[in-house]
Amino acid sequence: MNPLNVTQKLIQSHLIEGKMIPGEEIGLKIDQALLQDATGTLVQLELEAMGLDRAKTEVAVQYVDHNLLQTDFKNADDHKFLKSAAQRFGLWYSRPGNGVSHPVHMERFGKPGKTLVGSDSHSCAAGSLGMLAIGTGGLDVAAAIAGQPYFVKMPKVMGVKLTGKLPDWVSAKDVVLEMLRRHDVKGGVGKVIEYYGDGLNELSAMDRHVIANMGAELGATTTVFPSDKETKRFLKSQNREGDWSELLADEGCEYEFHDAIVLDDLVPLIALPTSPGNVVPVSEVAGKSISQVVIGSSANPGLRDFWIASALVKDKSINPEVSFDVNPTSRQIMQNMIDNKAFGNLIKSGARFHQSGCMGCIGMGQAPASGTISLRTMPRNFPDRSGTKDDQVHLCSPETAAASALMGKITDPRDLEKEFGMTYPKFEYPIYEMINTDMLIAPVEDNKSVKLEKGPNIKALPEIPELQDHYRVPVLLKMGNNVSTDEILKAGAEVLPFRSNLPEISKYSFTVIDDSFYDRAMTTRESQGGHVVVAAENYAQGSSREHAALAPKYLGQVAVLAKSYARIAWQNLANFGILPLEFINEYDYDSIEQGDDIELKDVIQSVKSKENIKVIIHKSNGDSKIIEMKHTLSDRQIQVIVKGGIINDFKEKL
Amino acid sequence: MNPLNVTQKLIQSHLIEGKMIPGEEIGLKIDQALLQDATGTLVQLELEAMGLDRAKTEVAVQYVDHNLLQTDFKNADDHKFLKSAAQRFGLWYSRPGNGVSHPVHMERFGKPGKTLVGSDSHSCAAGSLGMLAIGTGGLDVAAAIAGQPYFVKMPKVMGVKLTGKLPDWVSAKDVVLEMLRRHDVKGGVGKVIEYYGDGLNELSAMDRHVIANMGAELGATTTVFPSDKETKRFLKSQNREGDWSELLADEGCEYEFHDAIVLDDLVPLIALPTSPGNVVPVSEVAGKSISQVVIGSSANPGLRDFWIASALVKDKSINPEVSFDVNPTSRQIMQNMIDNKAFGNLIKSGARFHQSGCMGCIGMGQAPASGTISLRTMPRNFPDRSGTKDDQVHLCSPETAAASALMGKITDPRDLEKEFGMTYPKFEYPIYEMINTDMLIAPVEDNKSVKLEKGPNIKALPEIPELQDHYRVPVLLKMGNNVSTDEILKAGAEVLPFRSNLPEISKYSFTVIDDSFYDRAMTTRESQGGHVVVAAENYAQGSSREHAALAPKYLGQVAVLAKSYARIAWQNLANFGILPLEFINEYDYDSIEQGDDIELKDVIQSVKSKENIKVIIHKSNGDSKIIEMKHTLSDRQIQVIVKGGIINDFKEKL
Repeated sequence: MNPLNVTQKLIQSHLIEGKMIPGEEIGLKIDQALLQDATGTLVQLELEAMGLDRAKTEVAVQYVDHNLLQTDFKNADDHKFLKSAAQRFGLWYSRPGNGVSHPVHMERFGKPGKTLVGSDSHSCAAGSLGMLAIGTGGLDVAAAIAGQPYFVKMPKVMGVKLTGKLPDWVSAKDVVLEMLRRHDVKGGVGKVIEYYGDGLNELSAMDRHVIANMGAELGATTTVFPSDKETKRFLKSQNREGDWSELLADEGCEYEFHDAIVLDDLVPLIALPTSPGNVVPVSEVAGKSISQVVIGSSANPGLRDFWIASALVKDKSINPEVSFDVNPTSRQIMQNMIDNKAFGNLIKSGARFHQSGCMGCIGMGQAPASGTISLRTMPRNFPDRSGTKDDQVHLCSPETAAASALMGKITDPRDLEKEFGMTYPKFEYPIYEMINTDMLIAPVEDNKSVKLEKGPNIKALPEIPELQDHYRVPVLLKMGNNVSTDEILKAGAEVLPFRSNLPEISKYSFTVIDDSFYDRAMTTRESQGGHVVVAAENYAQGSSREHAALAPKYLGQVAVLAKSYARIAWQNLANFGILPLEFINEYDYDSIEQGDDIELKDVIQSVKSKENIKVIIHKSNGDSKIIEMKHTLSDRQIQVIVKGGIINDFKEKL
Repeated sequence: MNPLNVTQKLIQSHLIEGKMIPGEEIGLKIDQALLQDATGTLVQLELEAMGLDRAKTEVAVQYVDHNLLQTDFKNADDHKFLKSAAQRFGLWYSRPGNGVSHPVHMERFGKPGKTLVGSDSHSCAAGSLGMLAIGTGGLDVAAAIAGQPYFVKMPKVMGVKLTGKLPDWVSAKDVVLEMLRRHDVKGGVGKVIEYYGDGLNELSAMDRHVIANMGAELGATTTVFPSDKETKRFLKSQNREGDWSELLADEGCEYEFHDAIVLDDLVPLIALPTSPGNVVPVSEVAGKSISQVVIGSSANPGLRDFWIASALVKDKSINPEVSFDVNPTSRQIMQNMIDNKAFGNLIKSGARFHQSGCMGCIGMGQAPASGTISLRTMPRNFPDRSGTKDDQVHLCSPETAAASALMGKITDPRDLEKEFGMTYPKFEYPIYEMINTDMLIAPVEDNKSVKLEKGPNIKALPEIPELQDHYRVPVLLKMGNNVSTDEILKAGAEVLPFRSNLPEISKYSFTVIDDSFYDRAMTTRESQGGHVVVAAENYAQGSSREHAALAPKYLGQVAVLAKSYARIAWQNLANFGILPLEFINEYDYDSIEQGDDIELKDVIQSVKSKENIKVIIHKSNGDSKIIEMKHTLSDRQIQVIVKGGIINDFKEKL
């Protein structure tokens, strides 16, 4: 037998359909499922529509971490609905305030050798424990919970060899920022990133979580770490040593792509607005005034991350111009932070503490002041995501964040040695962490008798039309590269509470790019039966929210014409019956303008045949031009898309 | 000399104008001023308009405790503005997250024998330390900061004799709820409530704060406690023993009204929706299911209040149907709660912790689920104030709240003895509390060089028209008794961020009562030059927000026709040039209907003459009727109202 890498071992042990040939669709058995609230309400409605008896996965957990502010009845109603639905379908329920899904899942449920799908793009964080963990659209997670295989194109694996040891003042966040500096936000598309090498010995399980988590920002299918002695130590510290098993790459295994990082060579890095890929050394931008520092989120969730920040600010005061917002990842971490004094030291220095959850990372509070710089340990800084228009969010390590909070300006943490004569504090992991499971509610035995509790904002999904054979519809929007789902359907405190109300949330489609989109789409839905949009590379990167496909679909979106797609978005489009077409000749992108009409003929036949699709561009002056485009949908996806999407497909099957 | 009560001593020692004859306007020297952010932005704009050099009060503090959620740029921009304005005008600045104004002020600045005005209705809480502390509209606070006297009608004093000792499971909140049970929400109007008697020995300074704070709900001008040994102990615990002085009532002093409470006779009480005056024993409503419990706010702000809740839930789990939200009052209290383990015990039991501030008390987060009961230790439960339409907020003590959170239903805390064999835990006050002043920024020396930092949402005030001599305008709204400022201009996360943007916030005028009000008012402002509204008793009770006068003024409100007014609202109407007219014959209220036209002739002359004002009611069928109304404005107020309000008056003087 060929020697296998960790990714290949995980795939091989779960392969149900297809062959392990890169680019071909494979079907995987899924062991665990993760839901968060902002995507989860829709998933639960889908489970209801599917008539599911009880979850078929080994573990499925409904977390509540996004919509915690409760500025009106909607979020609290959603929490009640999610609890009832979790109990109805045999899921665990992690109550609001218990913590951010990814670190809580890792601490309480993560298990080496298992597969996981999650309706959150950062679900890949579980790769830190030697799992194959993939963020995906909610419908795919619903299907997995119902016992269906998870379908994905067989990825290629990029092996990244880590050697050496991180210098003082440099931490795991700088490792993944270095990857983003090298590969940018689509360097990981179609790939699994697998880390190996002696450098791993220097990275704790939570450090690996930091790196795996932001694999999402590289566009990777997921990130995989081996399960080794450190994984064992971590599970022991969570009182789950029995859940450990070793999972290492075979000697002599191969990777389709290669990269290597010498940890000793890294310096503190920072991602500039407005992309996680805009990475430079902190020293290049040091000295700029800041108004806010935020510590927390799934991208720096560990006890060490808060402790190091507390150690830097201990017995000092935060600069008076800076709001120092600290967002502990979970109640368990808060208890441990109280125990090791990190909590008290942060409070004393001037930190504002917030309830455990995603908070500002999803624009749910703590938006920065206009025209000012905010430094965050979070994973994303897409435009507007913080809640402030034209925001200037920078992403960095807890070391850089805390040093900058003290100084009131962007600060290379190594400068604290000069500034305060400080030596780099080293964190000692406790043998056993304090465990807190009080807000994790186990699945109930008698689940079928549980009634769903739906508040007035929780709406059933409207009917979705089947694919038609002929369209002539306008190009409502032409976009550039790397448009994120935050631009397609923004997050934030105003919009997130409508996640279970499609007609309402659709009003926010593309508003970040063009305020008139909704009105124009409603008009053309009526007058021309729909619309298309045009994009360049890596369309719909970022969050896994399926609303970024479902809402445009509701507004009549027939197809997207793009140079390339982010993985989850491409799957979501297909799942909801929107054709994800790709330019064969890239320059054809230049020949389409907003306002042109697009005509598609014999659509069903040409989609089914997998041949190139003729697209007629009608210019407003009467000229027209024919170009050819393609799709890369699997036979299964073609079946689904012709019916108008998976929901219709499910309805038909039931 | 006549023996004086504490209230009379405080007034006499600060009297600048007028005589101490109940009902006559007096002018008082003001020593301290308190601002919070939601009312403070307007006050700072007013100080700017007045061209103030530097605050003339001994102490003036700008707190930030209301608008902390920051769901977009507006709140963070306001914080920057407030900091710059505090520094410009020589005020202290309490940074966001430092804590709720009233307890922080009491701990750090409160001083027996002093006067205080605050642009927050609960400013009366400082009466707990032997101060005369009055909540009032922002313009009055601005004037006081500028060194002007504070004008108020000389109140009558109600002496409330406390005797005995509180039973186990009953605490200070039950004392003030008993007052509300007896006197309802307007029983204190025109009065200062002064507590005396042996029962005081059993009430700590923070217990007195609880009682003084909710004097606002009784409609009282303020509440006054003596400064005694307990006041000294408290100031010593805050490391401010030197600020103590004794202030006791003279033996043989008199009160215009009398009441008495035997503390031993009290039982746990609860205020039912939707008024703090709907008080019944907890036992009467025990057993009803609840979805939320909130601990915190200025109505139960002390270390004891959190500690007692933590002691009840220690080593137990909150009922899984209940969201147990804990909102520590200040960073100082958080530090002390960490120290005495209350924090850890609450977290462990399942509490969700929120940043220090007013939070749900002002509808800024943690709105309850639709159609469910929320128990809160807060001071108010007016309709919609929580952020949830048709909410069912109940007000109670921390003991009742914590017991109910454990049981998942409204629970008389005395039942915990039976349920868990618990004995009532007793709190030991520390000799010295941990003090935290890191987020309190002192006034700067060189204040005149500080520039105001105004974000795009901070708008200058529009021109306000002078009083005219003839009006014929429609009755746009007819209301009943006890309409609160929350119904006139609601609070909450959607509206509060517009507190420094009058044209925007005006759109929310009266929306709680009638969604069409704004549109109708804008129409009649154009077509008829304005409107009036009609109300019954105690119009505009509750919060001190001057927006509840300024926004209707902006929409063309000429006069309010009411049976009676809450004190602050009456002053605010006059300050902003709206005539606060009172029915002479109460039954005339019944003869006016919404939609009638009201005609006022020779307005200026009749207001100045203090004679009755003829009001012609034109019915839609052509009938008309003349009634007589009065006003009780002072000569000073008449001068102001004729000019269209204090802002115009100030502008003219400068």
